[in-house]
Amino acid sequence: MAMATLATPTSAMAATMRGTSPAPVAGSQVTAKSGSLGAFKSAQRGRCGELSRSVGSGSGSVSFRSQNLWSSVSVSASAASVKEAAPVKGGVEGEGKGKKKVMIIGGDGYCGWASALHLSKQGYEVAIVDNMCRRAFDEQLGLQTLTPIVSLSKRVKRWKAVSGKELAVYVGDICDFEFLEHAFKTFEPEAVVHFGEQRSAPYSMMDRNRAVFTQQNNVIGTINVMFAIKEFSPDCHLVKLGTMGEYGTPNIDIEEGFITITHNGRTDTLPYPKQAASFYHLSKVHDSHNIAFACKAWGIRATDLNQGVVYGVHTDETILHEELINRLDYDGIFGTALNRFCVQAAVGHPLTVYGKGGQTRGYLDIRDTVRCIEIACGNPANSGEFRVFNQFTEQFSVNELARLVTSAGEKLGIEVQTKSVPNPRVEAEEHYYNAKHTKLVELGLEPHVLGDALLDSLLNVAVQYKDRVDMDQILPAVSWKKISSVPKTVIKAE
Amino acid sequence: MAMATLATPTSAMAATMRGTSPAPVAGSQVTAKSGSLGAFKSAQRGRCGELSRSVGSGSGSVSFRSQNLWSSVSVSASAASVKEAAPVKGGVEGEGKGKKKVMIIGGDGYCGWASALHLSKQGYEVAIVDNMCRRAFDEQLGLQTLTPIVSLSKRVKRWKAVSGKELAVYVGDICDFEFLEHAFKTFEPEAVVHFGEQRSAPYSMMDRNRAVFTQQNNVIGTINVMFAIKEFSPDCHLVKLGTMGEYGTPNIDIEEGFITITHNGRTDTLPYPKQAASFYHLSKVHDSHNIAFACKAWGIRATDLNQGVVYGVHTDETILHEELINRLDYDGIFGTALNRFCVQAAVGHPLTVYGKGGQTRGYLDIRDTVRCIEIACGNPANSGEFRVFNQFTEQFSVNELARLVTSAGEKLGIEVQTKSVPNPRVEAEEHYYNAKHTKLVELGLEPHVLGDALLDSLLNVAVQYKDRVDMDQILPAVSWKKISSVPKTVIKAE
Repeated sequence: MAMATLATPTSAMAATMRGTSPAPVAGSQVTAKSGSLGAFKSAQRGRCGELSRSVGSGSGSVSFRSQNLWSSVSVSASAASVKEAAPVKGGVEGEGKGKKKVMIIGGDGYCGWASALHLSKQGYEVAIVDNMCRRAFDEQLGLQTLTPIVSLSKRVKRWKAVSGKELAVYVGDICDFEFLEHAFKTFEPEAVVHFGEQRSAPYSMMDRNRAVFTQQNNVIGTINVMFAIKEFSPDCHLVKLGTMGEYGTPNIDIEEGFITITHNGRTDTLPYPKQAASFYHLSKVHDSHNIAFACKAWGIRATDLNQGVVYGVHTDETILHEELINRLDYDGIFGTALNRFCVQAAVGHPLTVYGKGGQTRGYLDIRDTVRCIEIACGNPANSGEFRVFNQFTEQFSVNELARLVTSAGEKLGIEVQTKSVPNPRVEAEEHYYNAKHTKLVELGLEPHVLGDALLDSLLNVAVQYKDRVDMDQILPAVSWKKISSVPKTVIKAE
Repeated sequence: MAMATLATPTSAMAATMRGTSPAPVAGSQVTAKSGSLGAFKSAQRGRCGELSRSVGSGSGSVSFRSQNLWSSVSVSASAASVKEAAPVKGGVEGEGKGKKKVMIIGGDGYCGWASALHLSKQGYEVAIVDNMCRRAFDEQLGLQTLTPIVSLSKRVKRWKAVSGKELAVYVGDICDFEFLEHAFKTFEPEAVVHFGEQRSAPYSMMDRNRAVFTQQNNVIGTINVMFAIKEFSPDCHLVKLGTMGEYGTPNIDIEEGFITITHNGRTDTLPYPKQAASFYHLSKVHDSHNIAFACKAWGIRATDLNQGVVYGVHTDETILHEELINRLDYDGIFGTALNRFCVQAAVGHPLTVYGKGGQTRGYLDIRDTVRCIEIACGNPANSGEFRVFNQFTEQFSVNELARLVTSAGEKLGIEVQTKSVPNPRVEAEEHYYNAKHTKLVELGLEPHVLGDALLDSLLNVAVQYKDRVDMDQILPAVSWKKISSVPKTVIKAE
């Protein structure tokens, strides 16, 4: 009999832009180096394409100089202050261990922003590391979040005004080791929460360039984080976002990272076999293997959170002011199932079920995401331990989600239709699925369940902002089978 | 009971240099583009550091312009001719299926060169794709093969003179998709044998730069090969070199790629769990997952050969002329156990056993490597099939190898000493090891076994060239635990 015990990791939110010089401390102006770095070195950097914006705030300014699409982006930046004061105390009792300085990579993204505010509220001293890549992807593809979000500088300033707490900000690319080294040496994190990856499966399947970008950016960025911990903060706890999608849909129960196998009379506990189904999900599988090795070889402590599909908009912190609102993606590239369905319902578009709709996955409320991050930070892995948690609370098939949204719509007087569209992915549409997810509950997670009330509030948000919906972005735009080396330009003509 | 069935893949020989323009057909002169390519694009290219040489031959010329260590290398090249004629018939009867045009990526390396000659001899039309990266690594590190090898141009010319058969040569980097596309479109391979990766575990553990280079080069190169097959030769059979090191040393039997697991009353056949123990071995694990996905999503046919440690120098083809001789590495970076021991014995250096010496691995004669490649090419995987073979013939512990070399030395009148040195790696030094390797035998492999005669001939080669041994290169120079982001410069001062 094979028996399952622990589990292996990866998933997440993301960020990356062409590396720059060391990112900045409190108000100082740092000018990015020009492109004279060797090609080998630059090859180790992510980059995310055209972006042209400049932002200023009281605590610092961030400016980007764009070059051309898919080419390098020089960044000169001076970010919000790195707070040197002792961390504010607070949070759940008994979780004080390691509860001090937390670096959140990808802290401007959907999960990252909500987590940064939550940890800040709980008394952690928080630094956000981000290269604004997620915003750049929207610019590239002509997409925008349903909810209007302000610049990171304004967000951070607003959080200070609302909570009295400062968030340090480092703008740069973790694929640029020089930048990452500076961030580590100045902030001295005791935990790193790593959301800083390209996190969309469809984006990774758009064309060869983006497939390569996704794997390169995610894998190299994570290797750099491992090296930074090893060299500059060896006791630092790596909390890495993985994805439940790493496991695929095996015909046996999914365990948390590891499975104990008895074979020909001998027994061992081994990494749970992975069957990822996009270049994005594969990048997370690669990360998991790399991190497991670093834990064993170097004694790094790591928690790999295999996260399910996150839904919802508001958390207790993001709801405090409209400038703190989180992003909500509904488009065919970055939108995930339930969020997308609610937006479709709000604008009277049929819910688009891919194929038969029997695809079953783990889901969780974004309020549980931030709590899981808090739990992981408050209970560090041991030195040398590679710990894996499956981070979701409930399982649903796509058809079940469609029925829940239809039912919630009825209560709000919205008639919701559902239609099947050809599945753009290569995946089983009817399959066994039973994944364990007990470890975070054992550490104190009290899950929100997906009920009518939550669906109503998600639908209401969708209705509130429905004038911002771009109907052209609702349908799936990426085919797993049609991907090619020809760059896919999806920015619509005027 | 868990039962093992098939297996998952990766390993190999290597090559990569900064991408260049489309590589060349028969005598035409192609000038490499200058470095104006976007950073995003260039990031998808491997590069392997300083190299300054120029080589000319009758059938083409190859020149490299070096810039600086770890920086870009521009290449302008015109290679040996791409033979357009019908392939010469030959080889083992009944293996004619798919026995036509084979592209060997990394065809200038240890396994690649021997395989290219063997397939050419067997009647395949062979193209070598290589960026000369392996030679560049030697230049970087001040190493050299024990056996004196001539340039690829001279090798190819000599093979033509000896056998009457032409080898097409494409000099360039498979991380440069433009180059790879050109090679595919002009050669139109029916099989691609992919040795084209950085293949040394110690090299990948020298410093952060080389760790990143190894994963980026190997993973992106292989993704590009997958895309090239999908788009330009969808029926082409990918024969990818993996490594037995992907499996690590589990406490249960190692199966060939897949294992059938019964768990909580349900059963599935899943990829065999991987526990690689260097950035190099991990890169092969990543490749395996990526290729399995491409087979499923795109219908590609692939065979993943998880190769053991290869020993020996001569094959039936390389022995035909001294200009066809294969390389033999004995140094602490690229040398593998048995070959290194024979060279140590020849020069009177104690055999350096790492730690307790109980580390057990699969081994095979290079004459079996070339035969396995022939078998794989002659028996293509089905469309959509991801097939895994464990490619080795016998298991030995390091202590057993030391005893065999000592015994062979005695017969030649050489007194051989053995000493234990601190293990530079992080690995179990005493462990269970039992790996299946029946599938290639079932397809016709008749293994050479490691006997006294073979050891004698290997020792004799070592003695023949012992004046070329650099004693400073014999000891391990790379520590798994001491790796850092500080670039390691091992080129010795004058």
